[in-house]
Amino acid sequence: MLKIALPALILLLLAVFFRPTPGEYPRLILTAEGVGEIRNEFGSVPLFDASLAKVKEDVDAEMAVGIDVPVPKDFSGGYTHERHKRNYLMALQAGQLYQILGEERYAQYVRDMLFEYEAMYSGLPLHPMERSYARGKLFWQCLNESVWLVYMAQAYDTIYTWLPAADRERLENNLFRVVADFISVENPQFYNRIHNHSTWGNAAVGMIALAMDDDELLQRALYGLTDDGLELGVKDDDGGFIKVAGQKAGFLANLEDPFSPDGYYTEGPYYQRYAMYPFLVFGIALHNVKPELKALQYKENVLLKAVDALLSLTDSDGEFFPLNDAQKGMSYHSAELVTAVNIAYHYGGQNPQLLSVAEAQGQVLLDQAGLSVAMGIAAGKAEPFIKTSVNLSDGPQGQKGGVAVLRAGREDLTVVFKYAAQGLSHGHYDKLSFSMFDKGEEVLQDYGLVRFVNIGQKGGGNYLPENASWAKQSIAHNTLVVNETSHFGGDYETGSQHHSELHFFDAGNENIQIVSASESNAYPGTRKLRTLALIKNEKFREPFLLDLWKVDADVEQQYDLPYYYLGQLLETNFAYSNPRVLEPLGESSGYQHLYLEAQGESETGNAKFSWLGPNGFYSLTATTEADDQLLMARVGANDPDFNLRRDPVLILRRPATAGTVFATIIEPHGSYSPVSELALESRTAVEQLAIVYDDDNYTAISIADINGYSSLFVLATQSSSEDEQHSVVIDGKTWSWQGPYRYFEQGGSIQK
Amino acid sequence: MLKIALPALILLLLAVFFRPTPGEYPRLILTAEGVGEIRNEFGSVPLFDASLAKVKEDVDAEMAVGIDVPVPKDFSGGYTHERHKRNYLMALQAGQLYQILGEERYAQYVRDMLFEYEAMYSGLPLHPMERSYARGKLFWQCLNESVWLVYMAQAYDTIYTWLPAADRERLENNLFRVVADFISVENPQFYNRIHNHSTWGNAAVGMIALAMDDDELLQRALYGLTDDGLELGVKDDDGGFIKVAGQKAGFLANLEDPFSPDGYYTEGPYYQRYAMYPFLVFGIALHNVKPELKALQYKENVLLKAVDALLSLTDSDGEFFPLNDAQKGMSYHSAELVTAVNIAYHYGGQNPQLLSVAEAQGQVLLDQAGLSVAMGIAAGKAEPFIKTSVNLSDGPQGQKGGVAVLRAGREDLTVVFKYAAQGLSHGHYDKLSFSMFDKGEEVLQDYGLVRFVNIGQKGGGNYLPENASWAKQSIAHNTLVVNETSHFGGDYETGSQHHSELHFFDAGNENIQIVSASESNAYPGTRKLRTLALIKNEKFREPFLLDLWKVDADVEQQYDLPYYYLGQLLETNFAYSNPRVLEPLGESSGYQHLYLEAQGESETGNAKFSWLGPNGFYSLTATTEADDQLLMARVGANDPDFNLRRDPVLILRRPATAGTVFATIIEPHGSYSPVSELALESRTAVEQLAIVYDDDNYTAISIADINGYSSLFVLATQSSSEDEQHSVVIDGKTWSWQGPYRYFEQGGSIQK
Ligand SMILES: [Ca+2]
Ligand SMILES: [Ca+2]
Ligand SMILES: [Ca+2]
Ligand SMILES: [Mg+2]
Ligand SMILES: [Mg+2]
Ligand SMILES: [Mg+2]
Ligand SMILES: [Mg+2]
Repeated sequence: MLKIALPALILLLLAVFFRPTPGEYPRLILTAEGVGEIRNEFGSVPLFDASLAKVKEDVDAEMAVGIDVPVPKDFSGGYTHERHKRNYLMALQAGQLYQILGEERYAQYVRDMLFEYEAMYSGLPLHPMERSYARGKLFWQCLNESVWLVYMAQAYDTIYTWLPAADRERLENNLFRVVADFISVENPQFYNRIHNHSTWGNAAVGMIALAMDDDELLQRALYGLTDDGLELGVKDDDGGFIKVAGQKAGFLANLEDPFSPDGYYTEGPYYQRYAMYPFLVFGIALHNVKPELKALQYKENVLLKAVDALLSLTDSDGEFFPLNDAQKGMSYHSAELVTAVNIAYHYGGQNPQLLSVAEAQGQVLLDQAGLSVAMGIAAGKAEPFIKTSVNLSDGPQGQKGGVAVLRAGREDLTVVFKYAAQGLSHGHYDKLSFSMFDKGEEVLQDYGLVRFVNIGQKGGGNYLPENASWAKQSIAHNTLVVNETSHFGGDYETGSQHHSELHFFDAGNENIQIVSASESNAYPGTRKLRTLALIKNEKFREPFLLDLWKVDADVEQQYDLPYYYLGQLLETNFAYSNPRVLEPLGESSGYQHLYLEAQGESETGNAKFSWLGPNGFYSLTATTEADDQLLMARVGANDPDFNLRRDPVLILRRPATAGTVFATIIEPHGSYSPVSELALESRTAVEQLAIVYDDDNYTAISIADINGYSSLFVLATQSSSEDEQHSVVIDGKTWSWQGPYRYFEQGGSIQK
Repeated sequence: MLKIALPALILLLLAVFFRPTPGEYPRLILTAEGVGEIRNEFGSVPLFDASLAKVKEDVDAEMAVGIDVPVPKDFSGGYTHERHKRNYLMALQAGQLYQILGEERYAQYVRDMLFEYEAMYSGLPLHPMERSYARGKLFWQCLNESVWLVYMAQAYDTIYTWLPAADRERLENNLFRVVADFISVENPQFYNRIHNHSTWGNAAVGMIALAMDDDELLQRALYGLTDDGLELGVKDDDGGFIKVAGQKAGFLANLEDPFSPDGYYTEGPYYQRYAMYPFLVFGIALHNVKPELKALQYKENVLLKAVDALLSLTDSDGEFFPLNDAQKGMSYHSAELVTAVNIAYHYGGQNPQLLSVAEAQGQVLLDQAGLSVAMGIAAGKAEPFIKTSVNLSDGPQGQKGGVAVLRAGREDLTVVFKYAAQGLSHGHYDKLSFSMFDKGEEVLQDYGLVRFVNIGQKGGGNYLPENASWAKQSIAHNTLVVNETSHFGGDYETGSQHHSELHFFDAGNENIQIVSASESNAYPGTRKLRTLALIKNEKFREPFLLDLWKVDADVEQQYDLPYYYLGQLLETNFAYSNPRVLEPLGESSGYQHLYLEAQGESETGNAKFSWLGPNGFYSLTATTEADDQLLMARVGANDPDFNLRRDPVLILRRPATAGTVFATIIEPHGSYSPVSELALESRTAVEQLAIVYDDDNYTAISIADINGYSSLFVLATQSSSEDEQHSVVIDGKTWSWQGPYRYFEQGGSIQK
């Protein structure tokens, strides 16, 4: 925290001596200069013109229907909620149309709508729905109230000059300051947190502050409430902390804390996408109105880096990896990402690869950033957006673990590995978990969240009980579970104090993309090191993933290692039995939501399991010990409201063992088409996988394929030094290497 | 059968007096004249040129690797099986390249491959895999052996002139006649049936007969074996009849019997797609070599009509409706449909709508039909392919029921209703079942088959046990099941003697597409009339489906009416309880494969059930009686090899009732996007559905929406006359109409 002291002090000094002078309007996002440029260019910039035409069509249609500002009543999904959301979008867009086209009817529409809100707001009670820890007035939660103000501040900005001073005064005093005070002073538990909710609140207050030239509000936006009266340790209705010791507040603290220096947002990409919007628009507004604050350069350009990080956390069709609470399907096609990509391009160095993302999005903003993107595309500057392997640190100083993405080929195989911090209240107990994608399709999934966002029938569109009882639990993830309990005992306070540790990450070798990280706190007394290596070996048919666990523990305990494959089981090399009736696998920690469908044992030292997925065939080969069980289970038990998907899982269970090693290969192969009905390479190429060496410092795995070709992977489990020399003797032969790992392509015919 | 006597006699006379004279080669599909035309045009016809380039690339790559004709060993999915399949395709395509490009190396390749087969074939024993009722030599079944010959005959045809006479003699005597005799004389149980297997066999013998100018073989192809030595009542390994009394044989009988006058193929579109290829290629070959037989005009152009019928049995992305045994995903993008569409366009009146299908296929045949299509597209003649509601009769004379397709909008809502005959050995016990599509997505599904075609790990890629125990059973379909037994007691012989009866079909009114059919034999003593009406009423939000059953029965029995919805349950208006463990719903007739997940009762007279599907929201509203139960179940019980998908179903169960009426509305509404997270119109618009009148002749249903708007549907359940006048008195008000049904848009406020 100390490192922000100096800039904060400077800002404070600047703020004290800074008296805003009336400038040109609009000024926040769209600027007077930008409007001039747009008026010069539009009509000959296809993507901008198409976006303008689309917005005009929408706004004209709404204006034809007329303004409706209903008395607030509904949850998300209900009429009044959706109507107020639509209103602020229409107001913003009408304001943009007024600036670009100069047609006064758009300004009148914005004014009329704002005055309808002005007439109603002061008399409004709290919203009748009582679910939130911070209820709004227009909406059931302050969060939506803040979003409303972020948009309305921009709408107001576009008609500021056009409005008579008396109108401005009335709107500012009876509406904007009232809303700003309501979401801040009257709701410190919402406003003064380190949380995406507060970011929206801070940005809302800040945007209207800049529009109104109100310095007191601007200070409140940047630094939070001086005295919030909150007690330490209070939690919100999601179980997230509201205030912890030493907590800073305000926009700059929120920018400081949840973003790592690499631009990773600790709640994960789904919430980053949502949170990015207020960060970026308030960042740009500060850039435009208070350039001396250098908001975009804050923390070494973290806002622009965050856009890169967010784009790198997508599969090949642009969908975000579902880390923590995350709705699957959300993607860079969302409106927030149009904003992010346009801004990153315009204000962040005009990276031509971003233009191809913008092309895929098919729309641009109606401001100078959108114009810039559209002109870049029109000039033929777009280049393919290439995603590579990347390691993103978590934590304000980048020292709280991270997320690594390994990619082989053009996203043919993508592995997402999470060794991060808890991720605030939307975090899952998923230490060292991973998921795997084949292009845009999930091969091994992370379940995501249990929520039907904005679908009223499902608990008002909010988080459902199974989100906590299932989706957050460790067993819902592709990670190791000890004694059928979740990491940190599923305790949020404990989880929030810890994070996993990077052992090493190496994407320098095209043939081996590798990451290794350890976790020692999830189960006290147990140190787990997971290493994931995407290996491309021309002797093997296709690239494959080696998943290697080295577990140190002093006591005997039970290990469950789940793989949430997606598709239809084709074949196993082990026998199993099926129960006549399906019963839950356990009583708690998420196990109560799994039905046991089959149970088997591997006699051969290798359990093999293959399935048909959306892009072809996949096989998993795991080393097994004598007492290991193979459990085939399915999500859906104790699900009275049918909130869960009936997805399958294979669990490798190892009972009563202290320290141990798990080695698994997951291998995509061949292809199948229901049109040609051609099944190519439908069987695994892995003949045998063996742990051929294991001691306190080294673990070695041999991989033999069906043609008798063998290779050897060796790992230094304690040393991550790139310079250190190592050697092990296996079956009388010495293997030597430098650095934390080595893959010997010619591994000889080593078999256990 | 009598109606084919005359043409058959004429053909017989023609054949007796007909002596083939050596003509020009190639002659079968590609003709000498066609080759001349292609050589003139290619290079300036984009789709043809692209198809040629693609084929050339494939063949050149295979030629570079060299010919492999391995000793037969494997099932489908295994190397030798797939290699021999690839060989005949490569031989055909190399032959086409030789003709078009004139490069002799292609002819040499075909010759060399044929001689490798010639060297091996005479010494081959039966294929080592013993599963088939008609084992092949190159392949495990005569079916594949026949396909091989259909292709190789064409390949031979392309190099016929180029080959020295001695080579021709050797190939004909040592290979082609041997194969032809093997699949016919030596396998009458395969060759002399009315079945798609025999069609392939007949076409294979016929194609090589035309290539070799062998009239004896041609007669055998057209009329089958005179004395097959088969006993009546014998069945194949799928349970299909091999010979029944009075059975004809040969290509013409196979063309006569399974196709209705409307071109519907009694096994359904999946097998029609497969069967069409030999029908069409042998039909074209006859057209080219024996134009006097008028093969394409046979049975009023049934072959060309069949292509239309097949295309009309697809959803909006071209996938075939899965009637009977059918693999989902098979579509008009398959190679067989490229053939079918090219031929239908070229030989069937150059319908410009077919060009847009060909554009979607992205390839054409390398013959005069393909050239014709590519030139049509290049000339800009393509028009959108518009699918409308259609009623296709089943049975040789069109008197064995049929299949109706109702479509609203541009395939926004499509209903497929099956009231056909058994459908031979691939038929399901699915009388009066239906499925429903929203554009290309299934809303209410037919399960399809239980088979992973060509995937060796799953029972050699063949039908799995659950195909008979589950997929064929009545409860696996959206149709009424009495006393937990399948139609006809699941007995194939009984089912084969019966078919449902059309009551009426009317697609003349844009606002009501309707079909009604009855079934009296599936459960002796019970007459069921099902009426499906796709209703578009501007007062209602969106078009909806009314599903109305009128059941006459003298004894009390249990009725189960399943709806296999696809998606996630959102809401019910009835309470239900969930068992702690999941048990199979029953012991047999498919019930043993369903797990009961929940059970409820409706207190209100209407059970409502809504779900989120891939294209938005869907709601079902069903009238209920006091003792009715709502069962929520899922496929997957007693499935030891994980062959079944875990798909859900809602079953309306009515215990101990004699005659009865079921009325249900299925209603798509609104939309949802995980990107915008906008949920529009997520709740049903149906307030109340009521049976307001029911006697021996009439049933009336009132439909009230959430705005209090009410309409009335009345049905004459006995009379289908379009002229007859009807009236009923409901609550003192008289409703009069003409014809079998009437939808009164202003139905008053009738409620039960
Ligand atoms: Ca995806
Ligand atoms: Ca489809
Ligand atoms: Ca589909
Ligand atoms: Mg998760
Ligand atoms: Mg995708
Ligand atoms: Mg079926
Ligand atoms: Mg589709």
